[in-house]
Amino acid sequence: MNYSFSERVSKLQPSAIREILKVTQDPTVISFAAGNPAPEAFPVDMVREITSDIFRDEPITALQYSITEGYTPLRKTIVELMGRRYGVNCVMDEVIITSGGQQTSELACKALVNEHDTVICEAPSFIGVINAFKSYNVNLVGVELEDDGMNIEELEKAITTNKNVKLIYVIPNFQNPKGICTSIEKRKAIYELAKKYGVMILEDNPYGDLRFDGENIPSIKSMDTEGLVIYAGSFSKILAPGIRVGFTVAPTPVISKMTVCKQVSDVHTTILSQMICNEFMKRVDFDAHLDKLAEIYRHKCGLMLSEMDKKVNPKIKYTRPQGGLFIWATLPEGVDMMDFCRKCAAEKVAVVPGSAFTVSDDVKTSSFRLNFSTPTDEQIIKGIDILGKISYTI
Amino acid sequence: MNYSFSERVSKLQPSAIREILKVTQDPTVISFAAGNPAPEAFPVDMVREITSDIFRDEPITALQYSITEGYTPLRKTIVELMGRRYGVNCVMDEVIITSGGQQTSELACKALVNEHDTVICEAPSFIGVINAFKSYNVNLVGVELEDDGMNIEELEKAITTNKNVKLIYVIPNFQNPKGICTSIEKRKAIYELAKKYGVMILEDNPYGDLRFDGENIPSIKSMDTEGLVIYAGSFSKILAPGIRVGFTVAPTPVISKMTVCKQVSDVHTTILSQMICNEFMKRVDFDAHLDKLAEIYRHKCGLMLSEMDKKVNPKIKYTRPQGGLFIWATLPEGVDMMDFCRKCAAEKVAVVPGSAFTVSDDVKTSSFRLNFSTPTDEQIIKGIDILGKISYTI
Repeated sequence: MNYSFSERVSKLQPSAIREILKVTQDPTVISFAAGNPAPEAFPVDMVREITSDIFRDEPITALQYSITEGYTPLRKTIVELMGRRYGVNCVMDEVIITSGGQQTSELACKALVNEHDTVICEAPSFIGVINAFKSYNVNLVGVELEDDGMNIEELEKAITTNKNVKLIYVIPNFQNPKGICTSIEKRKAIYELAKKYGVMILEDNPYGDLRFDGENIPSIKSMDTEGLVIYAGSFSKILAPGIRVGFTVAPTPVISKMTVCKQVSDVHTTILSQMICNEFMKRVDFDAHLDKLAEIYRHKCGLMLSEMDKKVNPKIKYTRPQGGLFIWATLPEGVDMMDFCRKCAAEKVAVVPGSAFTVSDDVKTSSFRLNFSTPTDEQIIKGIDILGKISYTI
Repeated sequence: MNYSFSERVSKLQPSAIREILKVTQDPTVISFAAGNPAPEAFPVDMVREITSDIFRDEPITALQYSITEGYTPLRKTIVELMGRRYGVNCVMDEVIITSGGQQTSELACKALVNEHDTVICEAPSFIGVINAFKSYNVNLVGVELEDDGMNIEELEKAITTNKNVKLIYVIPNFQNPKGICTSIEKRKAIYELAKKYGVMILEDNPYGDLRFDGENIPSIKSMDTEGLVIYAGSFSKILAPGIRVGFTVAPTPVISKMTVCKQVSDVHTTILSQMICNEFMKRVDFDAHLDKLAEIYRHKCGLMLSEMDKKVNPKIKYTRPQGGLFIWATLPEGVDMMDFCRKCAAEKVAVVPGSAFTVSDDVKTSSFRLNFSTPTDEQIIKGIDILGKISYTI
């Protein structure tokens, strides 16, 4: 049989970075290539206790089919959380539970964007969501991400010069891969442009609660008087990613269509996972829990940065994040970045080449991404020591 | 804001049956409208024990990110199960774990079918998968489902007269909604046509293990010498649906593309759920477990049929299923089926109008679907008594 695939998936080719990421399967390799939360951040004892209580008290609820919109008590918890913590007033009909944060982007694209319509994203941006957009065969347009968020002029130009612009995708907090935050001024500017041109914003916020330095910046959703913003939240980084629970907060008509799309995909999110999240939010002192996470990540990020300060050629520039999981390093102009990453891999240190995060393969980048949350302290020290010794050629 | 949605979701309109299904939210209504497995069939004690062991022995594996293809031990278990129980020889690279059985259909459609390409399904067929196909804006063509499977002549005509036929979707065991099985002869004939015309078959088998009468019939996948069949399995009916675990067995190139589609949607299936399924399969005496399920469903189906034999107007015909969850009842020619279902709902018995399972709204049907697995014995007796008293007009 000669298999022929749909046009949309033919555009999703395995990329050149695969060969580099393949080395991470070797247990002797130090991986700075992951995006995993620190395992020591998982509240294992509490989750164990909660799960045991669920199977004692409500086993049938945890095992039977449930509704697509999500477990009602968890949706209520999220309404309360959005108000209290993020200044977002919403009602339950504006909330659905998703199977991880990424599903919000996939469902939003499916519900709102026709093939060949335009989606605008930050450049660089998160590979998983870039591919979700590509899997619907959209016209994906990248707008340069500066140190304080998208270039606003370029954004307006992208909106006005492309056909059928339907979505602006942004990760305003500790962006993946750059680790930077969009400033309050730029958040307002992005919102004003969306309003002016009648375009929806997809605000992805998986890392917002992982701030260990600086001040929280209001979400774009909290400014949303017009019903323009689809907000994606996630329990992956504040609780655990393996249970796959995220949520969407969006205007009710959008939520309705996304619900239909979710129904035909996975019917509903694992109900046991949803019950675990809800009980966790009820039992935990959330602020204290986030303080504990901040301490873990502040330490790991600080350690990686101080080792880099000592060991890495000063011509290599890198961000000093205030939260999240990633450091973004940039080689001097003219250095062959892929060659550098390959040399790292050969020396058993894996980083992600910046080309993994570009909108198309012909965008050139001399940057690479480092993750500090997954490796141990020993691995950070040893890995940066190795990385510091990698020579590069111009 | 005036929201504009994608063409594909605009085709997914809420249907007229919603008003009838809405009554099932009223706890005083007896619902024969669900598709839920019997809650007494859930192995609650074993799942409780397994979960507790997982959190004692491997909490980080259960909580951390995992790979899209699925939990490796579970994929191995499925390879073994497919060989032993279903006569399907496959290797691990031909298996992915999905978030419930339905996800296989959604991913297969996304990976293989362009907008406006043709998908052929049984008429009537399962609403969830019909909508999954519609959500990719395909040309969906129904082929009459006779008592022993699709009308083969009509199937060949559908293949030869429609443009770009990419998939033939069948539920050969205890079909939803009709409850019938496709005969071995017709399974072979469907496979031969697929081979002749180079079309893939999507074989959906969520109910195959719920046989309580008659002999098992070999799966189409077990005849697949050419790599034409995508097989969808599910733990929803043999273990529990709330944990959302299904699986796909398909040729490796197809699995690869479906994996990319899954990755951009939910990254991976809840790893805790996958570990529960794998441990369950290791600990349970599977044949004895299925015997226990068969006993529960044989009893419930038998009770509903014997009550119907006593109470229901003999002009209403219905199937006598050998397994699965559903009885398919057909009103005499000319009776207004929707009116009959509305009257049932008014008397607080919910059934699903056959129009829920048609490929398009203009297909007429005088049938409705009854579920015997979810209601209690008392509800079956009382509900059928009420249903027997509903008058109908021609």
